[in-house]
Amino acid sequence: MLTVFGSVAIDTIRTPNKVLKGVLGGAATFASISASYFVKPGLIAVAGSDFPKKYHRILSRYLDLQGLTINEGKTFHYDGKYDETLSTRTTLKTELNVLRNFKPKVPEVYKKSEFVYLANNDPDQNSAIIKEFDKVKFSMCDTIEFWIANKKSSVIKMIKAVDAVVINDEEAKLLTKEHNLIKCAKKIMNWGVKYVVIKKGEHGSLLFYDDVIFPSVAFSLEDIVDPTGAGDSFAGAMIGYLASKKTVNLSTIKKAIIYGNILGSFSVEQYGLAGLLNIKKSDISKRIKQYEKMVRF
Amino acid sequence: MLTVFGSVAIDTIRTPNKVLKGVLGGAATFASISASYFVKPGLIAVAGSDFPKKYHRILSRYLDLQGLTINEGKTFHYDGKYDETLSTRTTLKTELNVLRNFKPKVPEVYKKSEFVYLANNDPDQNSAIIKEFDKVKFSMCDTIEFWIANKKSSVIKMIKAVDAVVINDEEAKLLTKEHNLIKCAKKIMNWGVKYVVIKKGEHGSLLFYDDVIFPSVAFSLEDIVDPTGAGDSFAGAMIGYLASKKTVNLSTIKKAIIYGNILGSFSVEQYGLAGLLNIKKSDISKRIKQYEKMVRF
Repeated sequence: MLTVFGSVAIDTIRTPNKVLKGVLGGAATFASISASYFVKPGLIAVAGSDFPKKYHRILSRYLDLQGLTINEGKTFHYDGKYDETLSTRTTLKTELNVLRNFKPKVPEVYKKSEFVYLANNDPDQNSAIIKEFDKVKFSMCDTIEFWIANKKSSVIKMIKAVDAVVINDEEAKLLTKEHNLIKCAKKIMNWGVKYVVIKKGEHGSLLFYDDVIFPSVAFSLEDIVDPTGAGDSFAGAMIGYLASKKTVNLSTIKKAIIYGNILGSFSVEQYGLAGLLNIKKSDISKRIKQYEKMVRF
Repeated sequence: MLTVFGSVAIDTIRTPNKVLKGVLGGAATFASISASYFVKPGLIAVAGSDFPKKYHRILSRYLDLQGLTINEGKTFHYDGKYDETLSTRTTLKTELNVLRNFKPKVPEVYKKSEFVYLANNDPDQNSAIIKEFDKVKFSMCDTIEFWIANKKSSVIKMIKAVDAVVINDEEAKLLTKEHNLIKCAKKIMNWGVKYVVIKKGEHGSLLFYDDVIFPSVAFSLEDIVDPTGAGDSFAGAMIGYLASKKTVNLSTIKKAIIYGNILGSFSVEQYGLAGLLNIKKSDISKRIKQYEKMVRF
């Protein structure tokens, strides 16, 4: 099975055309729901006693929630504002609330997970929790600027402990102090991780493995309304696809990345989580075919 | 045949690791030499009486120079400085010199050219000169921020007069006042041009034709020393390849773009024009094969 550990949030998202208040968000929400189109993931996360029943129902439609803890207090709250090009987001508020003292606990049935995705949590927490899974075939983590700036050595330790890291281009540069993304990836691989995936937003991504580079374009979209969660959806689809295939090699990882691009494209077409809900399997395979046709030459 | 109209320059290029003074440059220099790996282009350009013999010899090795005028005065001089990431270039000096009052003249033998590339010249000049070619099968132009800012309606008129436009992403946004590159391209196509190619530097390019989008990645390189002329090399290889095939359709244009990516990659690996000189045909076909392997999934 696949376990996803990360944040569930109640977000305020300010886009040029619409402000969303109190919407369901969080890296693990996007990643696990995206993964759910391939396997049924287990979610390890915490929400507060204010977490709306309707959000709980949404999660329960896609996920196994044995690992979801509800603690007294308010759910983690993020408030961010996009510029008019949707390319830069400014954080207005980050209220950790119940996330602050959360001690994640891995349900017994999750411990046999062969696939584990660690979202952009505290790297020390990620490093600790990965040890609780004793049958891991493929583990993957993400990280964000906050941890690179504040706990860089812990980030490096976490990267050593997993099979793959997915990371934004700007964060990869910040982490490695290199400008060229190939140099960034080589440095990260030298820390002991097998696969590095650098996410470049609308420009797609780069996969690195040994001396192989696999660049892939994003699925071209004319109408993007809200980029929130695109990277998490990308990563979730990647590991969800791999978990469904049960085989991890260069070929399945490349395909997993294409699925990542596709689910990422669904997520940005609608506001908040909406683009990632109620996707039909046939919508995904149709878009995969469009993608294959689009890049052919 | 293929005719290239554009600037020949003597450049000062300041990169983080090396400053090049008085080197051979110019949009038409890069574009036509890049194209010369596919056909022998004719060059329409002007240089000053200071133009070094050794630079003339370089041009004459690759190009037909019946269209090169030498006028009294100094050659067009550009001086620019890259930031340490090589992603932003600041113009320190632009001395038009002999370019200022240059009246381009199309040699009789060039007038039968079926392929014409108009580099980032004054759009009025480009619009006028294209009329002198009466057997054009495929014409393509580029433009730059300076013309968009100062002669926008002339730029639009020029775009109407050609079959394809190649343009940087930032310039496409500036020209159309759109943020999304698909919206940019649609607006440009609505002005009456068939093909739009938006160049995204290290992120590759997007081709638009009717309702087709063809995104392609750049050839991944770890050691980029000087991006000068990469976009011109891209465009030159594109039209050079098409001229060699004599057939222009979506399929050959897609392949032309891949050749554009490859020649662009050679150009940035060495300083100034050096990366674009003395390339073997086998080097090109080897890199094409690497590219095809790289993007396969």
